[in-house]
Amino acid sequence: MAKIADQYLQVHPWKIIEDGFHPDRSEVSESLFSLANEYQGTRGYFEEGYSGDHLTGTYLNGVYEERFTEGTAYKGISTRLAFMVNTVDWLYTRIELDGEILDLARCKYSEFRRELDFRSGELRRETVWETASGKKIRIVFLRLLSMETNELACQQIRFLPLNFSGRPKLTLGLDFSTPHRMYGQNFWSCPRKDTGMLLGVSTSVNQRVFAGMRVSANAKPEPIEGEKFTGYVFDLELQQGRESIVERPVILYTERDPNQPLEEAWNKGVSAMQCVTKDYSAILEENRRYWAGFWSKSDITIEGDPETQQGIRFCIFQMQQTYRGALKGANIGAKGLTGEAYNGNAFWDTETYCLPFYLFSNPAAAKSLIDFRYKTMPQAMARAKDLDCEGACFPVATSDGTESCTLWQHASLQLQPTTAVAYAVWHYAHVTGDTEFLRSEGAELLVQICRFLATRGQWSAGGKFGYYAVMGPDEFQMMVNHNAYTNYMAKRTFEYTLEVLKSIPPASVGVTTSELAEWKRMAEEMLIPYDLSTGLFEQHLGFFDLPHIDVDAIPVEEFPLYSHWAYDRIYRNDMIKQPDVLMFMFLYNQSFSAAEKRANYEYYEPRCIHESSLSPSVHSILAAELGRSQEAFDFFRFATRIDLDNYNRNACEGIHTTSIAAAWMNIVYGFGGMRSDGDLLSFKPSIPGHWKSYSFQVTYRQSVIKVEVNQAKAFLHVVEGDPVRVNFFDKACELDGTGISIKI
Amino acid sequence: MAKIADQYLQVHPWKIIEDGFHPDRSEVSESLFSLANEYQGTRGYFEEGYSGDHLTGTYLNGVYEERFTEGTAYKGISTRLAFMVNTVDWLYTRIELDGEILDLARCKYSEFRRELDFRSGELRRETVWETASGKKIRIVFLRLLSMETNELACQQIRFLPLNFSGRPKLTLGLDFSTPHRMYGQNFWSCPRKDTGMLLGVSTSVNQRVFAGMRVSANAKPEPIEGEKFTGYVFDLELQQGRESIVERPVILYTERDPNQPLEEAWNKGVSAMQCVTKDYSAILEENRRYWAGFWSKSDITIEGDPETQQGIRFCIFQMQQTYRGALKGANIGAKGLTGEAYNGNAFWDTETYCLPFYLFSNPAAAKSLIDFRYKTMPQAMARAKDLDCEGACFPVATSDGTESCTLWQHASLQLQPTTAVAYAVWHYAHVTGDTEFLRSEGAELLVQICRFLATRGQWSAGGKFGYYAVMGPDEFQMMVNHNAYTNYMAKRTFEYTLEVLKSIPPASVGVTTSELAEWKRMAEEMLIPYDLSTGLFEQHLGFFDLPHIDVDAIPVEEFPLYSHWAYDRIYRNDMIKQPDVLMFMFLYNQSFSAAEKRANYEYYEPRCIHESSLSPSVHSILAAELGRSQEAFDFFRFATRIDLDNYNRNACEGIHTTSIAAAWMNIVYGFGGMRSDGDLLSFKPSIPGHWKSYSFQVTYRQSVIKVEVNQAKAFLHVVEGDPVRVNFFDKACELDGTGISIKI
Repeated sequence: MAKIADQYLQVHPWKIIEDGFHPDRSEVSESLFSLANEYQGTRGYFEEGYSGDHLTGTYLNGVYEERFTEGTAYKGISTRLAFMVNTVDWLYTRIELDGEILDLARCKYSEFRRELDFRSGELRRETVWETASGKKIRIVFLRLLSMETNELACQQIRFLPLNFSGRPKLTLGLDFSTPHRMYGQNFWSCPRKDTGMLLGVSTSVNQRVFAGMRVSANAKPEPIEGEKFTGYVFDLELQQGRESIVERPVILYTERDPNQPLEEAWNKGVSAMQCVTKDYSAILEENRRYWAGFWSKSDITIEGDPETQQGIRFCIFQMQQTYRGALKGANIGAKGLTGEAYNGNAFWDTETYCLPFYLFSNPAAAKSLIDFRYKTMPQAMARAKDLDCEGACFPVATSDGTESCTLWQHASLQLQPTTAVAYAVWHYAHVTGDTEFLRSEGAELLVQICRFLATRGQWSAGGKFGYYAVMGPDEFQMMVNHNAYTNYMAKRTFEYTLEVLKSIPPASVGVTTSELAEWKRMAEEMLIPYDLSTGLFEQHLGFFDLPHIDVDAIPVEEFPLYSHWAYDRIYRNDMIKQPDVLMFMFLYNQSFSAAEKRANYEYYEPRCIHESSLSPSVHSILAAELGRSQEAFDFFRFATRIDLDNYNRNACEGIHTTSIAAAWMNIVYGFGGMRSDGDLLSFKPSIPGHWKSYSFQVTYRQSVIKVEVNQAKAFLHVVEGDPVRVNFFDKACELDGTGISIKI
Repeated sequence: MAKIADQYLQVHPWKIIEDGFHPDRSEVSESLFSLANEYQGTRGYFEEGYSGDHLTGTYLNGVYEERFTEGTAYKGISTRLAFMVNTVDWLYTRIELDGEILDLARCKYSEFRRELDFRSGELRRETVWETASGKKIRIVFLRLLSMETNELACQQIRFLPLNFSGRPKLTLGLDFSTPHRMYGQNFWSCPRKDTGMLLGVSTSVNQRVFAGMRVSANAKPEPIEGEKFTGYVFDLELQQGRESIVERPVILYTERDPNQPLEEAWNKGVSAMQCVTKDYSAILEENRRYWAGFWSKSDITIEGDPETQQGIRFCIFQMQQTYRGALKGANIGAKGLTGEAYNGNAFWDTETYCLPFYLFSNPAAAKSLIDFRYKTMPQAMARAKDLDCEGACFPVATSDGTESCTLWQHASLQLQPTTAVAYAVWHYAHVTGDTEFLRSEGAELLVQICRFLATRGQWSAGGKFGYYAVMGPDEFQMMVNHNAYTNYMAKRTFEYTLEVLKSIPPASVGVTTSELAEWKRMAEEMLIPYDLSTGLFEQHLGFFDLPHIDVDAIPVEEFPLYSHWAYDRIYRNDMIKQPDVLMFMFLYNQSFSAAEKRANYEYYEPRCIHESSLSPSVHSILAAELGRSQEAFDFFRFATRIDLDNYNRNACEGIHTTSIAAAWMNIVYGFGGMRSDGDLLSFKPSIPGHWKSYSFQVTYRQSVIKVEVNQAKAFLHVVEGDPVRVNFFDKACELDGTGISIKI
């Protein structure tokens, strides 16, 4: 894996710290220093304005716009693209002193420091600005998104004149006029405004977003207004050596309902404003309590490796910021709420990479992710119909359940989003034992998925069942037949559905006997390409005879290949982008022998270029299982610090939210050796050689299990709740507060 | 083949005749009644204006515009689309009588008749118009494009008042303002104008087109002008029972040079106008002579089947109208100059379907088609580079040599345009014996093509050479590996190139010894999927195990499948769109045994839905060879009358120019049993059971061979030039004026 770290942040167990401004990485920092509380997210941009590289972005979960692509539209090719739209710049700030406007791209400054604290979710930035006239002032910018009140955000600015007293001019505003970068236009109009409050309505979808602020400053506010702007100007009265504080709580209110009357949207926003009573310090205090509670159950500690300690906490912190299951109908965009790449859409990453983190820390939040699919089943059924199939076909990319991927070669050929939903149903029900869920949603989802799989699949001339013209998880093989992943996942989906329908009457979910018989036959006759002599699964029929390419011989400047290689060339060899066979061997890990896992890992890993950020983590887990501990650690380090070290050089677009979800799995499934696909939850921990110890906790059937591992032993115990049966190094045992330890 | 004729024209051996207007087929008629002289082409639209369905189109060969597609552009995906642009409406006519404007969609009329005569290229249309006030006038519209003077067109209108004398108002104009239908905009501005003359300049490419007219009418012209329009209004003085004639020769002058100074473009146009001295009758007379000369060498007669007689002459007439090798740099668009579908671009159809017609009637015209490829080799080399390859990759669709197909799945995966150029080089040199051509162009083309084939091809893990991720001629199988057609054509291309480079020193065309060795090895190790036990070629690796579909069971309303089936569904079974294996068995016919041809025909024909208009003709030829004479005739009838009977219901978009080229092959290669891929030209005629006789002539090595076949015998003789050696029913013989006949 030819990935090279670009580390510029300070290492700290609970913070990320930028000591001295790095303008060449300004947008990377904006991404890394993003704040979110699931409901809203704000990039770490400079609120005072910055004429260097910047992407001003505040996003509201579920607030998207749409556009339609032109060009050849054959049947079943989606032409509607939904994208997360930037909303209001609620931090809009301008500071003028002696006719000079603060802009770190143009002004003289020193002592720049930016910190984000995972224990409070506070972003703090300070610098000393020296004007052309020689005046020096220390300014501290603080911001927070409330973890208690979704709609609430707060900004504080502290001014400390170092060598003068004077009257800088401060402007604070709410600004809906920022253009969307990729599409080069602004998508908002503001039909209603009042001082310090305005209502934005988006162009196509008619989203309503209310923004309001209440400024407290020791100066008289002069209201100012623009077409999509409201704000105040203050003449601050600053005394040398005395700190003055300005702060403003802000409400961003939306119900994500395009049909809501404007009057109602306005009134609800105003009411929400009126409920705001807390000041910055009170919100900060609340946030500290929230995060302390969270970390007490979800922290991962690593002793002896400060970088991965920081990395894994950053990942966990970002996951929790992005999604925590409190907001109805939320999903997880590929970049969370930290940037506009991938249009803010959610992918199969949700079920495949993110779900386990919630499943073992907050099962209700995990269920809520599946609810998103259940609620968007009508769109998935319409999509299946567009594809001349029955049942439900879940989208490759989506904001609202409709297919938002306009590339047919992905949207029409990738079935993994659909099988991933079935997998999530199984995984959730299997881990939680929530049979009620199966009855209320799960069975219905499974049935519609099976219908889709039954109609999209075909019988070969030789009488085997499987999928033609697909693209498996490895997106470097397109329009292949009998992709092992697709076929295997479909087989397991049929089998699990048939099993579920043993305890839930098929007729109650509208399934006929002939359907059951058909699905059974399809599962039985599913072609899984496999070479008995080697134990290798063939990624698809014909893969083994593809032209071989030595991936290590590809010059590093040719990456990413999508930008440097002719499009079709990518698809014409045995190079793979991300795990495909290894992916289903991870998902159904205990269904394969150690020898099979070893053979397939040894065959496929050297062919993988990990061009997907989702790739290294799965390899890390399997490497750990196979005792390839250095590889396991290297992949883990990459997965954990992919953004902090900007490995893929695209963190500027937003962080790899769904990929870093897998970093958590690297500890729990990888080094922790946890497996959740057997009858009992099982553990088989190992530890990288240079770590002193590590620990993590998982919530399992109402109990919290803590796993502590050092170089000598692994120790498991229940820290909360009843005893539970687990498998520990292949031995079933009853785990309680006393715990069990094993020498490793 | 579920194709149903929609016949509405009268049958006539030398004409197409519409007796009584068919407004529901108005655009079909516009296509069928198109005129062209290779340099320019005009659809048979109503010059007087028509508010029903119409597509006003006058096209100049090689005059195109361009536009750029938006959306994801990976490397090697063409985003520039060149399209034949409609130019000036040189026939613009409006006729007003008693305040009523003639418009067959709104006026009362009778005795409508439209005829196009293949012996003169004259389009004649007449009708009797009865105004609301009861006045009746017979109007005859005549038009011609000169076959002697490319730039010259002529319109004549005859007025015969039947029951009144009066002063209708006549407007005649030149109009550059017609919008392009598909792109909904007009692409011309007119920077220079004078009475009766104007210069059009196109928006993007800067094409210059001069249009000028000289009107002769027995009335005083009043000049009128518009932004993109010039013309005259006449108050005609008509006497009851006396015919008045108005006519105008028109010059459309372009050098297709976007860099030509406007002044020069204008002056050259004006000069061309000044050279026009002939009137309508003189041009008609010239055209009659031209076409008489043409038919004396190129006619095909069929006795006993008036419909196919008319059909085959229509095809030959249209071929000659579209292209005859007189215009430097011309190629043949898929619809010729009769419509805007396929953007007027040229495809591999040129080399594969059109070339033989010219090769055996006008070899210089055939060579000129290859010249087009030779001259656009720089574009083909740039394209190869875009695809990360070397050498020359010829475009799937083009107006100027650059790739104009913006669908990567065609443009990046279809190698047949490139191998077709190599085939054309071979075919031309083989039939004409023109070794000088090989030295001056052919070898260079072959070498650059081989370089492309060598770099686009790959070695399988098992050590065989071939092509991955291709789409063969059968466009219903996408991204397949080792397509038999592609591999076979590449193998033959390598082999032929190596043979040519035995007599032309490789170094003289820059070829190294190691290249020669590499190409030799690639040819030798080329994987041609073939089943020894059945003699079947497998269309691509894996084809035989694809899900089977009974093509006859597809409901007829689901055609065309591109419009009714989900896009990916088309590609997931053993249904084929057009010949693939059978295609190369046609092109290199004598390289395969009769048993192989039979086996493959019997396997592939039932799987073919002939969704391409190019499909039936190739099947007809092979069916004739295999003695399946009813099938051969059915396919031939379809190919010959595809547009006259509007089989595909899309003749409104323009006629299938390149497909009907193959109708000629159906007679010559099919029933005539001619083969041009052996050492000697060979013949093995057969005759459909219900024909009395048929005959055709081919020009071969400066001699004209006439083939006459009736139910009793086939008779071959040389009608012009020296004796030639040919193969007649597998027996070599010297053919002279006396000829040889054989009982059949």
